[in-house]
Amino acid sequence: MSIIHKFEGKTEKGEYQWEGVQANQFSLPDNSNYIKHILIGSDDGAPTFVIRFFQLPVGSSSPLHKHPHEHGVLILRGKARVQINDDFQELSIMDTVFISGEDLHQFVNIGNESLGFLCVVPKSGEY
Amino acid sequence: MSIIHKFEGKTEKGEYQWEGVQANQFSLPDNSNYIKHILIGSDDGAPTFVIRFFQLPVGSSSPLHKHPHEHGVLILRGKARVQINDDFQELSIMDTVFISGEDLHQFVNIGNESLGFLCVVPKSGEY
Repeated sequence: MSIIHKFEGKTEKGEYQWEGVQANQFSLPDNSNYIKHILIGSDDGAPTFVIRFFQLPVGSSSPLHKHPHEHGVLILRGKARVQINDDFQELSIMDTVFISGEDLHQFVNIGNESLGFLCVVPKSGEY
Repeated sequence: MSIIHKFEGKTEKGEYQWEGVQANQFSLPDNSNYIKHILIGSDDGAPTFVIRFFQLPVGSSSPLHKHPHEHGVLILRGKARVQINDDFQELSIMDTVFISGEDLHQFVNIGNESLGFLCVVPKSGEY
């Protein structure tokens, strides 16, 4: 069955919420918290991919890690520095990043507002 | 190998382009043209999903059709009316839509600017 999640936030204030989508908060190694929304996933009946939206607070970083599954990322808010293996690049709104499986990667919020980005994974990558 | 596509457009002007991504223009049944960018796909080495960005001009519609693969949609610009089987809903920026495989669907641009949306498909759905 198809499903719509209406946006109920205010992007200009960095407030992101969608009808029927839970905001899940998780701790980061630096003791800050990030927020994860599963915009489209198994609860919607999506059989092959999952579309997640992440928010990282100012100055915070995602874990430096790697795993077998790939990422498809689109920056929607703020500024990031991404590390991919030994390479570092700065990212702004609407930049996209494809991260291959087993590539070491980390996102650092280098802006003065929360960093918001979509991250698509195959179903096996959402756990 | 991982890859970054830097955004080179101007969202406020409805100009969308990315470094290393082709803008492909196609005709619609109403003789208008839509633009498709493959933001992440097989050219990037993405093994399981494809992230596309579509722009539909004012007053235009995507084909009313169905197919075996699912869609994961996020509206990024403008206003749409989406038909899913016998249901019609209006969509605005940041609304998401999951369209199941074999559900009849169509997007109509009901705003006064181009309609821009992401559409994620499994690799089998990009042809």
